[in-house]
Amino acid sequence: MTHTIEPIGTVHSCFKELFGIPRQPGLVKAARGWIEFYPPFNRAEAFTGLEGISHLWVTFVFHKSLNNETSLTVRPPRKEGKRMGVFATRAPNRPNQIGQSVVELERIETRNGKVTLHIKGLDLVEGTPVIDIKPYIPYVDSIPDAHGGFAHLAPEQRLQVSFSDEANRQVDLFEKQHPQLRQLISDILQYDPRPVYVRKLANKKQFGFFLYDLDVKVEIVDKGMVQVSNVVFSVQGTEHACSAP
Amino acid sequence: MTHTIEPIGTVHSCFKELFGIPRQPGLVKAARGWIEFYPPFNRAEAFTGLEGISHLWVTFVFHKSLNNETSLTVRPPRKEGKRMGVFATRAPNRPNQIGQSVVELERIETRNGKVTLHIKGLDLVEGTPVIDIKPYIPYVDSIPDAHGGFAHLAPEQRLQVSFSDEANRQVDLFEKQHPQLRQLISDILQYDPRPVYVRKLANKKQFGFFLYDLDVKVEIVDKGMVQVSNVVFSVQGTEHACSAP
Repeated sequence: MTHTIEPIGTVHSCFKELFGIPRQPGLVKAARGWIEFYPPFNRAEAFTGLEGISHLWVTFVFHKSLNNETSLTVRPPRKEGKRMGVFATRAPNRPNQIGQSVVELERIETRNGKVTLHIKGLDLVEGTPVIDIKPYIPYVDSIPDAHGGFAHLAPEQRLQVSFSDEANRQVDLFEKQHPQLRQLISDILQYDPRPVYVRKLANKKQFGFFLYDLDVKVEIVDKGMVQVSNVVFSVQGTEHACSAP
Repeated sequence: MTHTIEPIGTVHSCFKELFGIPRQPGLVKAARGWIEFYPPFNRAEAFTGLEGISHLWVTFVFHKSLNNETSLTVRPPRKEGKRMGVFATRAPNRPNQIGQSVVELERIETRNGKVTLHIKGLDLVEGTPVIDIKPYIPYVDSIPDAHGGFAHLAPEQRLQVSFSDEANRQVDLFEKQHPQLRQLISDILQYDPRPVYVRKLANKKQFGFFLYDLDVKVEIVDKGMVQVSNVVFSVQGTEHACSAP
């Protein structure tokens, strides 16, 4: 049985590239985005009853992994390179490339009869195709005493994050456009977004990533400590940038 | 963007038909089944690391709803016929027909190099096509204080369930083959599996459903009270029956 899927909408995200995206939803609460729906799925009647719901399941396609050949085993970042079965992980490169993320529903916006959902705590890259939206139902979905597996505890906060004077001034300016920007950068960095092999490169003292329409530059100042050195408006960021409609 | 999905396996379930299936996973903990995987996804390496994990997400296709035309609104059973937006519910007849269920992982079985997962608390019908398996990660997935929506509280136990002497004797016999059968029947009935319109039919005093290879007959004895009158081996059940391999 082959089953065909057509996206019902698209994610617009503060994350413009894969690097820097938290490894699970909810870890970085200041991560914001919105979902645009395609007709006929953008009509208000399809969302009746969603008012007052705090969290949503977003089902989506890992579209950035679509061209990779799927393997039965993967090397999750928290296993420091050790191979695991793909079904024991949530790796994006997996059979059928379908993902599910729980996100906070910040606001439902209806404009000219078209619905947009504003979401928080997402781990989704700009342009992610959305295939379904469902309410989170705590009495079913919340199993706090579920256990087992290598990733059942939250990751440790690996890095201490500071901002240079220059970066602090820049962030103050950009926060008018992008609320909680300092918090967002700080939370992304504390979980150390670098792949394991990059962390091991002693001579690699700088890295950067795009957030909204910004280019964020980071320096490793000591073991376990990073400093945000520079946050500038970026043409590359702009090309893929989005603001809420 | 059209995306094509190929099932990686199939659910074999105590539920042989849609009627009687709990409306969410986890409600009926004695509901058992197993997942058969197709090659190459049945190889042990794809499951390395799943040992000791208590709960799984099963992503699947609502294959019994595939021929229905999808509507933007649905009438969920708990709203007594009132229309809701499909994205504010978990109704099976929805755009893209993809479902997700959290189930308890009872046991991983490897025989002749082929893996089978034995699961509990399922709400899936026999033959459901499986498209993905992922570990449940409590620090991400468990949000006990999520709120809102008409279905955020567990359904009340609507019906008081008893067994006739005859049914009790029959269940004793069948429990050797199907552990916790009495519990299973009882839990299914207490949430009242009947659709709203059937509940309102005053002259409809009997109903039945198939479980495993059994035909379960039920009588309404009073308002809010049902009695299991008869549990017999059934050819119809057998045709679709499965036992764990």
